This record gives sequence, C-alpha cells and structure tokens, in this order.
Amino acid sequence: MYSTEITPLSDTLKTALQDKIDFKTKPIGSLGVLEEIALQIGQIQNSLTPTLSKPSIVVFAGDHGIVKSNPVSPYPQEVTQQMVLNFLNNGAAINVFCNQNDINLKIVDAGVNADFEPNINLISAKIAKGTKDYSIEKAMTTAECLSALDKGKKLVTELHKQGTNTIGFGEMGIGNTSSASLLMSYFTNTSIKNCVGKGTGLDASGVLKKAEILRKAVDLHQKNIQNPIDALATFGGFEIVMMCGAMLEAASLKMTILVDGFIVTSALLAAQAIDKNVLEYCIFCHTSGEQGHQKMLQFLKAKPLLNIGLRLGEGTGSAIAFPIVKAAVSFLNEMATFKSANISEG
Amino acid sequence: MYSTEITPLSDTLKTALQDKIDFKTKPIGSLGVLEEIALQIGQIQNSLTPTLSKPSIVVFAGDHGIVKSNPVSPYPQEVTQQMVLNFLNNGAAINVFCNQNDINLKIVDAGVNADFEPNINLISAKIAKGTKDYSIEKAMTTAECLSALDKGKKLVTELHKQGTNTIGFGEMGIGNTSSASLLMSYFTNTSIKNCVGKGTGLDASGVLKKAEILRKAVDLHQKNIQNPIDALATFGGFEIVMMCGAMLEAASLKMTILVDGFIVTSALLAAQAIDKNVLEYCIFCHTSGEQGHQKMLQFLKAKPLLNIGLRLGEGTGSAIAFPIVKAAVSFLNEMATFKSANISEG
Repeated sequence: MYSTEITPLSDTLKTALQDKIDFKTKPIGSLGVLEEIALQIGQIQNSLTPTLSKPSIVVFAGDHGIVKSNPVSPYPQEVTQQMVLNFLNNGAAINVFCNQNDINLKIVDAGVNADFEPNINLISAKIAKGTKDYSIEKAMTTAECLSALDKGKKLVTELHKQGTNTIGFGEMGIGNTSSASLLMSYFTNTSIKNCVGKGTGLDASGVLKKAEILRKAVDLHQKNIQNPIDALATFGGFEIVMMCGAMLEAASLKMTILVDGFIVTSALLAAQAIDKNVLEYCIFCHTSGEQGHQKMLQFLKAKPLLNIGLRLGEGTGSAIAFPIVKAAVSFLNEMATFKSANISEG
Repeated sequence: MYSTEITPLSDTLKTALQDKIDFKTKPIGSLGVLEEIALQIGQIQNSLTPTLSKPSIVVFAGDHGIVKSNPVSPYPQEVTQQMVLNFLNNGAAINVFCNQNDINLKIVDAGVNADFEPNINLISAKIAKGTKDYSIEKAMTTAECLSALDKGKKLVTELHKQGTNTIGFGEMGIGNTSSASLLMSYFTNTSIKNCVGKGTGLDASGVLKKAEILRKAVDLHQKNIQNPIDALATFGGFEIVMMCGAMLEAASLKMTILVDGFIVTSALLAAQAIDKNVLEYCIFCHTSGEQGHQKMLQFLKAKPLLNIGLRLGEGTGSAIAFPIVKAAVSFLNEMATFKSANISEG
C-alpha cells in the first residue's frame, strides 16, 4: 500500500569504527551512550568520519476536527494558528533552542485551520483546514493520508538535496495528543485508557473525559482498521501522517533521525509498522512527561538521551538533545588516540 | 578551621521569576527541569535576566602515593602527566566538548608527579609531586591541605575577575577514584565496600583488591579524623582538595557550579560538610557509571540532568550538559509571552 526502500545499517565499517572508538584516550566504554551513538551514526553514514551536516528540525502543524465538539484539550483550536505565527516570529521555545544550537528550523502547514501569508520559513503543504471529527467519521480519506505521506517524503527529499543529513521532527496541533494516544493504542496493542495523559495540562477529571471520548472512537472504528494506513487515516492528524512519511524518507536517504516526544513517537510507531528498518536510523532524544511516552519507548526498546520532564512538543526535546549527539560525532573525529598522544595503555 | 561566607539564595525575585517562566508561550511546567534551572540561576544571580558569562571548566590534576605500591588502578601513574599534556595539546575528550560548547578550559597542576614546561593553558599550583601513600600515613599535612584549599579559592577569584559566572570542575589523577571512595565513605557514613567501583576499568577481582586496600586505610586512619579538613588531608588528593576550595569560593561569589561525576562529587561532599549553603549554587550534570556515584547523589538529594553512562572524568559530564543549562537561561530570556505573541491561554 505504501512502499519504502530502507536498508538495514551496513556492518562494513562496524569493527573499524569500534576500534577507532576504543583507541581514543579514555578508558574503554567510558563515554557510555555517546560511544553507541558514534557507532550508529558511523554505520548510518558508512563512514569512519561521519558529520552532522545542516541539522534541521521540521515542525508540522495541523488542526483536529475532534476538538470542535469534544473537550480533549484545555486550549482552543486557534492556538495552533497562533503558535505557527509565534514560530514564524521566532518567539517559541523551539526557536530559542534551534537558534542556540545552530539548527535549521522549518515550519510546515500540514493542515492548519487558517490561511497564512507567504513566509520564507513556512512551507505550505496543507491537505485540508483540519481533519474531520473522528468521533463521527474517519479523520481523513485514504487519498488524503497517502497525499500527506507523500508531501512529508518530498519535503525531506528537498532538505536532503540542500545538504541536511540529520533531521528532527516536531509538531503543533491542538488535540494531537489524542491522535497520538489512539495510534499508540492501535500500534502497541494497549488499552486506550493506558495511552491517555494530560497533554498540555488537563486535570484528572479532564483526563478521564478525554479517555472516554477516545474509547468511543476506538469502538467506532476498530473493526475497519486493517493496516497502518487505515490507522493513520482514521485518527490523523495531518501533521502526524506527514511526519510519518518524512521519517520513512529520511531513513531511505540514510539520514540520522532525532526522535522527540509523545506525538513524534506516535508517528514513528506508524512508520516502523510500515518498515521496521526505520528504527535503525533513530536516536531517541528524550522521555516525555506525557505518561504514555514511556510505554511507547518500552515497546520500541528505546533508551532516550534525556529524561528531564519536558512535555512541550514542537521538537524541543530533539533541539535540546542535539549537542549531545554532536558530542558523539565530535569525540569520534577529534580526540587523540593513545598512540598519537603517547599515553600508556591500561 | 576553614571559614566561608556563602549566603543562601535570595528569595527577592523568586515570585517574579516564576511568573516570567509561567507566562512564556508553553503549557505551565512543560519545560520540566529547565524551568527549575532557570529559577535557580535567576535566584543565584538575583536577576530576571540571568546570563552565563564566560563559562569555564577547570581541570585539576594530581598524583596519588597509594598507586605506587597498591594496585588500585589498571593504569600506571605516568598517565596523569601524559593526560595533562594531552589536555594542553587539545587531544582529550574534555578539549573536544569544551571546544564544541564554547567553554573556557583551564588545566591546573595541583600536584602531578612531573615537571611541566610553562604553557598558557596550564596553571601551576603544585603542592607536591603527588600525595603520600595513605596505606602508611596521611596523604598530606594539614598545612598542605589548607594551602590546596586556598589555591583553589584564589584560582576561582581570578576567573571571576575575568568575567566567569558559571564554572565546572574536572579532574585527572591515576588512583583518584580511591580517594573519592574514601571521602564518600567518611562524609556519607557508608561502609567503604559500598563506595568502591571499577574506576577506569578494574575487573571484579581488581575491585575486590581495591576495596580491601581501602578498608585497611579506613581502619588505619579513622580514629584520627575529627573534621572535614582531617578527612581531606588523610585521603587526598591535591586535585580533590583544591577543587573543594574552588567550589566554596565559587558559591561565595554567587557563581553557578556545574557538578560532574564521582570524583568531583566527592569534593562537593567535603565542601558541603564545611558549608551546606554551597549546594544551592550547584547544578548536577550527570550520573556517573561509577557505581558509588548514585549513592552520593541520593545522599545529596540531587537529580542530575544526564544519565548516559559517562565515567570518564575530566569534567566531561559538565561540558556535555552545559548546553542544557544554557537552554534554561535562553528560554527565560528569549521566549515570547502569551501576551506578546497574542496567544489564547488555556
């Protein structure tokens, strides 16, 4: 239904990379996870001297029909549009962290319920002005879903042409923790009530209401979901689907993928159901404060770099973790060896 | 015996800082630990617009008499000297990470068993050519200990004059996990066998031998240790004592202190025994792979930023975590507010 061409990592240089890591002037293994990342990126790029070239974070924004008649978020739908403008005006958290760490930031209108003026940092890839309400019908048609996957793919092809080999994804969309919970429930085969959390800040009774709304959506649709594309089309949103297409293409192009929190990981759950090999290209950046994320990570057997209570979205976890990933590549390329530094080995 | 003038953090701006954090365009609390750090640094600097000015990492190097006749490390003593030269030649891990993150790096000869050529990046503060062997006698005299504390203090005074308000510490000294274990045992009142780990890479039988050597040292000295200065003088090393003096001065000068791993935390255990207020100025950067570190952190009720298996020393954990600390200050200073960005509140 959706074809991909992701190859497993090459083992050609694995031993040479491990030797290079081990001969650096440090006790064996003493850089912990940084050593694993250095090896992984070396294998992704099939190079003893990998680089992180033009690192980019792409933030996909979209609106969700569910929020119109159902209280799944404490914020009104306009906030999606307002936050897109905040991104374009350099005022959001993701702007600050990308500026700090020299990350190229792109904002994508995947399906916001608003019209935007042209802006050099805004990529228009709108499928529709928000998804349909999945408490009543599928969030989008199969054709819309495939179109969103394809637009995500093309965006990444273009960034790759411009020199990006390391890419993170973020999202903005009032209501999108609900879609992420539904996708999590489907792809990890977990009861929906264990996939629901407070999102941007629901209280305990709000979480219960949200869980009940989502349980009904599962009941309504589950018999009609036969494959990953059905799941994406049923629960949306456009930003999640587009991200899923973008991830699959990034792995096809042998880019390193920085995985953010709950919503981004829901897109990855779909992506790995389409092609398991995508996971070999992923670095998990942080464990979100959103409660379902830890279970997603367990399902994926992932141990993220950071666990500092972030639950903001926008790709902020990836932006904040990026210097750690860079440190892994830096030590591999720049540190002296025992031999070059004339140091006695243990 | 050793006087300090560290004041608790000011509460004057605490409410205003928290308001500033809460009015940023993000759900309340959604930046997790970054919000705590923004508040802490705002309070340290008593400012709504704190800055991280000329961030520095000071690596103290020293040799240990214990290694001459006791197998506490898999590496020979010459490695301390060789690694100092590696630092000066820009080849070590700490160089790479400081270069990457624009951190000013200074190397201090606190007591290496070697003579060095003058070098612009090497500060000579040598107390002696290595400590004495504490399996036989105290590592240093009380006068030497006080001199080391004082030299650490003066180094920090000077860096502060040059504009540094954020400082991390690192260390190099073959055998210094043994001193750190002994100090941990004394200051946290923990049996020495629970304070000993593999250091740079001892195997299981090596760890047992090390634990036995250190148990004997505890038995030999413990009746003579009456206060923190006695403990430092008895177990050393010069690099740890000098770091302790440096930390106390940094807190006196209201600098933000970046705390690295096992050995740096052992110096902090001594520092907080001298003046508990030092802890309010500390940001814990990582949990070391060295087994005793987690217990030290529990004792200090500290939750570090990173837990990625680093156990290299040199201050590398602080250098790698620095961009996260910077992110906390960046969001506080640079993010838009709901009002400035015209965003509907939840």
